[in-house]
Amino acid sequence: MRRFKLILQYNGSGYSGWQRQQSGKTVQGELESALFKITGESITSFGASRTDKGVHALGQTVHFDDKGRFPTEQYLRALNAVLPEDIGVVSVEEVSATFHARFDAKKKWYRYFIYNSAKKPVFLRDMATHESFPLNFPAMTEAAKHLIGTHDFTSFKTLSDENLNQDPVRTLMRLDLSRSGDWIWFDLEGDGFLYKMVRGVIGTLAEVGRGRQNAGWVREVLAARDRQKAGPNFPGTGLYLMQVFYSEEEKHSEGLLKGLPEVIFPVLAGK
Amino acid sequence: MRRFKLILQYNGSGYSGWQRQQSGKTVQGELESALFKITGESITSFGASRTDKGVHALGQTVHFDDKGRFPTEQYLRALNAVLPEDIGVVSVEEVSATFHARFDAKKKWYRYFIYNSAKKPVFLRDMATHESFPLNFPAMTEAAKHLIGTHDFTSFKTLSDENLNQDPVRTLMRLDLSRSGDWIWFDLEGDGFLYKMVRGVIGTLAEVGRGRQNAGWVREVLAARDRQKAGPNFPGTGLYLMQVFYSEEEKHSEGLLKGLPEVIFPVLAGK
Repeated sequence: MRRFKLILQYNGSGYSGWQRQQSGKTVQGELESALFKITGESITSFGASRTDKGVHALGQTVHFDDKGRFPTEQYLRALNAVLPEDIGVVSVEEVSATFHARFDAKKKWYRYFIYNSAKKPVFLRDMATHESFPLNFPAMTEAAKHLIGTHDFTSFKTLSDENLNQDPVRTLMRLDLSRSGDWIWFDLEGDGFLYKMVRGVIGTLAEVGRGRQNAGWVREVLAARDRQKAGPNFPGTGLYLMQVFYSEEEKHSEGLLKGLPEVIFPVLAGK
Repeated sequence: MRRFKLILQYNGSGYSGWQRQQSGKTVQGELESALFKITGESITSFGASRTDKGVHALGQTVHFDDKGRFPTEQYLRALNAVLPEDIGVVSVEEVSATFHARFDAKKKWYRYFIYNSAKKPVFLRDMATHESFPLNFPAMTEAAKHLIGTHDFTSFKTLSDENLNQDPVRTLMRLDLSRSGDWIWFDLEGDGFLYKMVRGVIGTLAEVGRGRQNAGWVREVLAARDRQKAGPNFPGTGLYLMQVFYSEEEKHSEGLLKGLPEVIFPVLAGK
């Protein structure tokens, strides 16, 4: 058997998340169905991140095993030919038989987009989160600093059947806010994220952005280790899994971003 | 009664077209439901173009009558508050009681987008038409010239119950092709368009673009006055109603384009 590492991009809006389920269309389900179509065999795939319903990916990383009946490049072409239009394979490479997409991940990078405008994002349905109240950007930037570092993130963890006894201590290496025109986006990098943690962090920072809480309140939320203290989870629509890193040296990939189709909106505007 | 002229933008991907139907979500249905919510009365709206299932609009123009219980500007705010996220009102103005959005239209401008790339347009589901075969742009540009002017466009008309006896002569004042990176778009302006005519024109030019026909063939298609001779209708996903003009002097509106939310894709790419 040979093991392959795959980088996947997908628009999560049509899917009930990454993970295969009894019912409902999932990205893993589509990928495994595509693998079956090209090999005739049931192949299990392992994704680095179990992205939720509606969450997008530019750099989901997956591994699977196969007899290796095709040259590596051919997996890319063949999978793209049978996968739906909103799931694309960016790269395939052969890796060692011990590589594991999930357990070997050293760091994950997520980006969260808010379209912060009174205008309606008519053409961005399910691609970003719309917030019409003008958020206080400096206050959110200040608040974000309290979350960087190694902390018990219990206040930002949504309970599920699977994570009751999960260690809530995580290291958030980066939490940067950026702004351009009506867009605000958040870059989060960490060694791991608890269930719906990014969305809880954004919802909490948004409370500060709306002026309901001051920046220092975020420190109290963290210290309380109580999900009730934090802001609500923001929706999955604004969330993108950007990249999964497997070593300390791995760089932020420009290649993944270049894999995006060229922009439609400047074209629409005749620019 | 006062009469109001409304400019609407919508992402058509969630709708069975403009026109109200017995079943299925339509843009007209959503608008009239919004009018009911804000006035408590059943108000009929008249759209300039009966855009099809999946077709988008940046400048659909609509009129409706109301007692005029609100200041004009308030209709805009109130309608936007109750309309879904993928339908937005750009402007409302009071017009004379004889204005008719459909019958007074002098010219309509449509734009059709093709994403012409081997890359998958993962994040543009339902926003553009994907064609992976590299189209011959100069040949299509040459072919398009044959369609400009006043012609019997029977070969580009899809029959429906309503248009059996419709005059098939139309004037196409403009049919320009543009290209930027992986994008090709077509600007069509005419005094009126037959049912699915734009999509038939694009499908026919694409036959030339694919090299299956030469540019001169388009003249034969036109002369044949036979729908069977033309190429297939291209999908509604790539089609945008850009603007409806009510006088010879009316300019191409930059305002409508500026109404678009700022671009997400350059932001995703960190530009």
